Amino acid sequence: MGNLTVCSGKAWEKALKRVKLVVAYEGTRYCGWQLQPNGITIEAVLNQTLSELLGEEIQVVGASRTDAGVHSLGNVAVFDTETRIPPEKICYALNQRLPEDIVVQSSCQVLDDFHPRRCYSEKTYEYRILNRKIPIPTLRRDTYFYYRPLNLERMQQAASFLEGEHDFKSFCSVRISVEDTVRTILSCTVEKFFKDIITIRVTGTGFLYNMVRIIAGTLISVGVGEILPEFMPVILEKKDRGAAGPTAPAHGLTMIGIEYGGGNR
Amino acid sequence: MGNLTVCSGKAWEKALKRVKLVVAYEGTRYCGWQLQPNGITIEAVLNQTLSELLGEEIQVVGASRTDAGVHSLGNVAVFDTETRIPPEKICYALNQRLPEDIVVQSSCQVLDDFHPRRCYSEKTYEYRILNRKIPIPTLRRDTYFYYRPLNLERMQQAASFLEGEHDFKSFCSVRISVEDTVRTILSCTVEKFFKDIITIRVTGTGFLYNMVRIIAGTLISVGVGEILPEFMPVILEKKDRGAAGPTAPAHGLTMIGIEYGGGNR
Repeated sequence: MGNLTVCSGKAWEKALKRVKLVVAYEGTRYCGWQLQPNGITIEAVLNQTLSELLGEEIQVVGASRTDAGVHSLGNVAVFDTETRIPPEKICYALNQRLPEDIVVQSSCQVLDDFHPRRCYSEKTYEYRILNRKIPIPTLRRDTYFYYRPLNLERMQQAASFLEGEHDFKSFCSVRISVEDTVRTILSCTVEKFFKDIITIRVTGTGFLYNMVRIIAGTLISVGVGEILPEFMPVILEKKDRGAAGPTAPAHGLTMIGIEYGGGNR
Repeated sequence: MGNLTVCSGKAWEKALKRVKLVVAYEGTRYCGWQLQPNGITIEAVLNQTLSELLGEEIQVVGASRTDAGVHSLGNVAVFDTETRIPPEKICYALNQRLPEDIVVQSSCQVLDDFHPRRCYSEKTYEYRILNRKIPIPTLRRDTYFYYRPLNLERMQQAASFLEGEHDFKSFCSVRISVEDTVRTILSCTVEKFFKDIITIRVTGTGFLYNMVRIIAGTLISVGVGEILPEFMPVILEKKDRGAAGPTAPAHGLTMIGIEYGGGNR
């Protein structure tokens, strides 16, 4: 009977389980999230470190495949494992082995059908701008330095036009062809911190390629007076990438976090 | 007469003038401010870059000789030069040549007797702590990660005991011997930002070696309950480095700025 308990215990422990990681990183050193033939990526480092730690071949699936230079406070990745390490302890063991610019914030077991990109989610991104005459060295990696004065009120007014369900074709990189370019932005706010830091915070249920960086670039064009706030609906209507502003540089962007429907499943 | 004008013009332009720089830097890569036989320092980089730019042998005199790893938003340096470049333009020419982790915020001519350490000044330093269970990669260079929960109110209470004129011998590194250890702290405040960042901001007319880092280390000991706030006057009275808390790590410290008596002279 003692044996029986141990056996069934082992069987339970050996079962495949799906684990969700919340991953923070400084993107500076990486060629983005997604595996690349040339160049180190966040995904590659996680796969390798998890495989070494757990003694299995691990392949993570990420929620937001951030570009080179983009940072994260709360990107999400899942993987399947047979490990006996309790899921919520994996993050501590993993952080011991990860480089200092990738830190897993939490780990937990999720339902087997949980998929970080296919399940309903609300993603939040922040684009940070240092708006002053001269750069600040300690902010150079995660804040875009822009020296022409930006008008906050105009940016806020323009941002409000983006909220809701729209065809965001004008805000999608032409390098990627997507059939359905309709997306929903739940909120798009512009705030000022510490006198000269302007943040653009966008929450939505889905984003097109480069969408947040094109929104940031367009709001910057509004801030310097090159585009009128009232022109935002026209840009949306045109469904033409050329109608929006430039794509703001990657290093100003941070993936803040992802909320999944049904809570932390 | 034309020649005469040109001559007197040249004589005026050739005169030695004293220029003040406000210097921001990320200290991570440097062995501190002061010239070192081994290792690169902020002072060495400024001397070399200014000498190349101006075509003269330049030696700057710094206000705050910050330690290795300490950052700055507004340290001050002065130098004498015969250059014809207008003093307020020097910062732009200099920033073109400086590495991206040193950025001069402004340059201006000052009176010939201005000395950045001997003139009356009020210096402000900030010590930044990330107080949560797990580190954030983008903050790792300029914020000290401390995972045990800190009690903000106790830290604030303890900090207030440091304001005023006191003998700060207990808050001075024993590696340096100074005769007069009496200093005046004009304000010492502790604040919380964004849920888990605690900043200790200290303004004073003069500081002992490692003083702000020992104040920070002691306030952290107060925050975790190892030292009672009411014990601060006793620590001051003891005039013994052993009575205060540990020296907090250098990378959490930023020199914020320096105000000189008589304004920006």
